[in-house]
Amino acid sequence: MDDGQFVPHVPGQVLVVGVVFRGGYWLDGVMHTKIAVDGFDATDKIASMITSSPHCKQLRVVMLNGITFAGFNVVDIKALNKATNLPVITVTRDKPDLDEIHEALQNLPESERRWNLVLDAGEPSSLSTRNAEETVYVQTAGISMEDAEKIVRLTSTRSSVPEPLRVAHLIASGIARP
Amino acid sequence: MDDGQFVPHVPGQVLVVGVVFRGGYWLDGVMHTKIAVDGFDATDKIASMITSSPHCKQLRVVMLNGITFAGFNVVDIKALNKATNLPVITVTRDKPDLDEIHEALQNLPESERRWNLVLDAGEPSSLSTRNAEETVYVQTAGISMEDAEKIVRLTSTRSSVPEPLRVAHLIASGIARP
Repeated sequence: MDDGQFVPHVPGQVLVVGVVFRGGYWLDGVMHTKIAVDGFDATDKIASMITSSPHCKQLRVVMLNGITFAGFNVVDIKALNKATNLPVITVTRDKPDLDEIHEALQNLPESERRWNLVLDAGEPSSLSTRNAEETVYVQTAGISMEDAEKIVRLTSTRSSVPEPLRVAHLIASGIARP
Repeated sequence: MDDGQFVPHVPGQVLVVGVVFRGGYWLDGVMHTKIAVDGFDATDKIASMITSSPHCKQLRVVMLNGITFAGFNVVDIKALNKATNLPVITVTRDKPDLDEIHEALQNLPESERRWNLVLDAGEPSSLSTRNAEETVYVQTAGISMEDAEKIVRLTSTRSSVPEPLRVAHLIASGIARP
């Protein structure tokens, strides 16, 4: 899952693209939803997109490009795990800077509610993907870090991030570009 | 290149998705444009999408899912070849039924102009892709049928159609779905 481009802080709807991958190689399906810039609907909209998809039954794990979409529309990864009955793994190339996020949230309504969702996702753990030099940062819900690490490594076939996230990013940025 | 869903015969804009593939395996980029239902802008819009793309210089061939997009917005494949300076190959799984197309065109304005574009693309040639049992139909501009056959076979890595067309279809239908 990844989101497309948008104008920060301006009310609007942002495209979120989900891709269905078979292992780290074959794209099997594409789904999409729209969420509000700096809103609170990311968890519900992403859960509905997944559970209403014809691909839902073949899914084994949900991967997210971090936990914040469309600005600071924060995903509640534990709730997403419960709603979809699927393990959730967030992956980012850069280490999320919690101090920076906390500061940025102060400019938004309901900053405390957003901050609690960020804390609730847990401290990001670093793990190496294809080789010892490439590190990504991971948060999980409904799956052990050990199993998450196996999945991240197995699916990072083309780059240091899992192929489904690389492809979701290419699609979201290629379609949402004006 | 493939188009997304739309309501036939109702004026509107239809999403056309182009994907950049490295060989038959790796998605390297996604681009998009919008064209008019039953309009005459498919050739120009697709050519601009390609030539204005940051990926343009790495492209070696343009593949289209047939020559009609967004209803009967027919691509002039010779003009597309000239405008992009790239060979153009159209691929369809089913043999285009020229009689059926000719009849359908009679319900549209400027049917003669559309029909000439269809005829100008040449008779579709059949060729076998991954194995002798799987046949696709191909039209070309700026490339020999022999070279086109090689490219279609090399890129049909996952199914009987070239992987870029399979993926463009998945994206266009996954994003344009309401």
